[in-house]
Amino acid sequence: MDFSIDLIRQAQDRIAPHVITTPLIRAERLDSYLGCKVYLKLENMQNAGAFKLRGAMNACLILTPEQLANGIVTCSTGNHGRACSFAGKMLGVPVTVVVPHGAPDIKVRNIKALGAQVVQCPAVERFDVAGRIAAETGAAFVPPYDDWAVMAGQGTAGLEITQQLPDADVLVVPTSGGGLLSGVSCAVKESCPDVRIVGAEPAVMARYGASLEAGRPVELPQADTIADALLSNHPGEKCFEVVRRYVDQAVPVSDQAIKRAQKLLLTEGCVFAEPSACIGIGAVLDGTLKVDPDQKVCFLISGGNCAIDQLDAIKDAEV
Amino acid sequence: MDFSIDLIRQAQDRIAPHVITTPLIRAERLDSYLGCKVYLKLENMQNAGAFKLRGAMNACLILTPEQLANGIVTCSTGNHGRACSFAGKMLGVPVTVVVPHGAPDIKVRNIKALGAQVVQCPAVERFDVAGRIAAETGAAFVPPYDDWAVMAGQGTAGLEITQQLPDADVLVVPTSGGGLLSGVSCAVKESCPDVRIVGAEPAVMARYGASLEAGRPVELPQADTIADALLSNHPGEKCFEVVRRYVDQAVPVSDQAIKRAQKLLLTEGCVFAEPSACIGIGAVLDGTLKVDPDQKVCFLISGGNCAIDQLDAIKDAEV
Repeated sequence: MDFSIDLIRQAQDRIAPHVITTPLIRAERLDSYLGCKVYLKLENMQNAGAFKLRGAMNACLILTPEQLANGIVTCSTGNHGRACSFAGKMLGVPVTVVVPHGAPDIKVRNIKALGAQVVQCPAVERFDVAGRIAAETGAAFVPPYDDWAVMAGQGTAGLEITQQLPDADVLVVPTSGGGLLSGVSCAVKESCPDVRIVGAEPAVMARYGASLEAGRPVELPQADTIADALLSNHPGEKCFEVVRRYVDQAVPVSDQAIKRAQKLLLTEGCVFAEPSACIGIGAVLDGTLKVDPDQKVCFLISGGNCAIDQLDAIKDAEV
Repeated sequence: MDFSIDLIRQAQDRIAPHVITTPLIRAERLDSYLGCKVYLKLENMQNAGAFKLRGAMNACLILTPEQLANGIVTCSTGNHGRACSFAGKMLGVPVTVVVPHGAPDIKVRNIKALGAQVVQCPAVERFDVAGRIAAETGAAFVPPYDDWAVMAGQGTAGLEITQQLPDADVLVVPTSGGGLLSGVSCAVKESCPDVRIVGAEPAVMARYGASLEAGRPVELPQADTIADALLSNHPGEKCFEVVRRYVDQAVPVSDQAIKRAQKLLLTEGCVFAEPSACIGIGAVLDGTLKVDPDQKVCFLISGGNCAIDQLDAIKDAEV
């Protein structure tokens, strides 16, 4: 395997000037709702609004000037696109982002606000469309997750967690293709092997649950979920290899529980996060993740790119 | 003056089992909006949703069993009422809260949810009504702010700030009657005399600005503001005495700036707070508080008792 904590440490040095060391806080008021000692790693407070900047920035910074000459192109359900747009703007290169139809307006607006060009297409075609644009324009493709440089960048969030809460009992990570989960699990398990690491994924498309059971990456039918940043229907192959080695468990979470989690985090936790970022808390509410009152459980809150209007969807959720 | 940092230290020991040491975080993404290094003291994450529990709990814990025998009564625009209800529930005594007409439903609901009785009346009559109930029932009156025990309790938030950010340049505190401002300013100035302390108050009812200029507590006509926790039309006399000694400046903030601040804190800062809690940030947006890019400015975020519906008021605010 061409992946290691050393790659993550190198990424940390490389991206340090551009990313925020985000707060990891104790959220005591959530304890009684979740039945454990609650900690939150606040990647929603990251530049460009999500952990995605870590991987995108690392992937861009290892490209040569020649590779960057024609700009970069990527495909993304939103947050990676905004991260690439942010990175491209800092590096002074043009950026094209392929976004699936149905991505939240706020995410598309935020990408455009950074000067990037947006191309929309059906979700399942987004990699093909991005590949075609790369071939036609000579732009460098920056993949959203199944890439060692991207995974190493995301893993830097894990390095911070091992500094901020070295005695965590459980770490819960929102999971789509597995870029964040793979990077973070490697960083944490290699430093603090006793931390139990859990990936939380939408129940309608539990690609890691199915793949870990099958022992190989499994592709599921594309499905829709309120967790609009967790739309991959299969694990990345590289990600899967790392996840299989370091992750203890993948748990499915219903959309209803994600909504409840978002409302709980907002009104009782006082933290504003997008639905996908709340899926770990949803796993506890849903009962698919079991925790104990004495356990220190850290929820990685992955992003905060959410419009106020979107909160209409959770007004009536039960807390 | 019968007030000192010793009273605040005693309060800290007394209330420790019941209150949360709230996080103080760096909120780097807000720097470019506010033109300074932004820190947030998150009292919206306090038990019962606001700093008010500190003072209410201290005031209740120094009452004798005889004084508590007939329960407690208070008057409050919401947060102090919830705090007293929380304290009363822990101490096993009945609580009556006099709430002005127009207080947000969520605040009234939260008080009732803790088992307290709610009596509503016009805002200017709330002290008289509470006094009458105390006389009739023998309940102990727990004042919302102009009381040494309450002020000492609120001051414990200041003690935490001196531990968490001893080298702050500026500390901005939401101000109504002055309970929080007086307690916090005493705790901070006696420990870290170089911190500049600023009270932020609604421009429609700038009672501290007027009073500091006059050199005595001034009563202003009652006015309405979106900052529903900052409705006092005059400084508390005891509070004023302390504020005059320790506070550097009081700044007025428009309702429009408070709305902008709440939206900025939510969507860029990822922190959910009630309008009153955002007034310090509003002071910078309004230009009434001048800060420098090199300054560490800590905003005390006083409470988070806000319903999702209330966010409708800020949807169109400019950030």
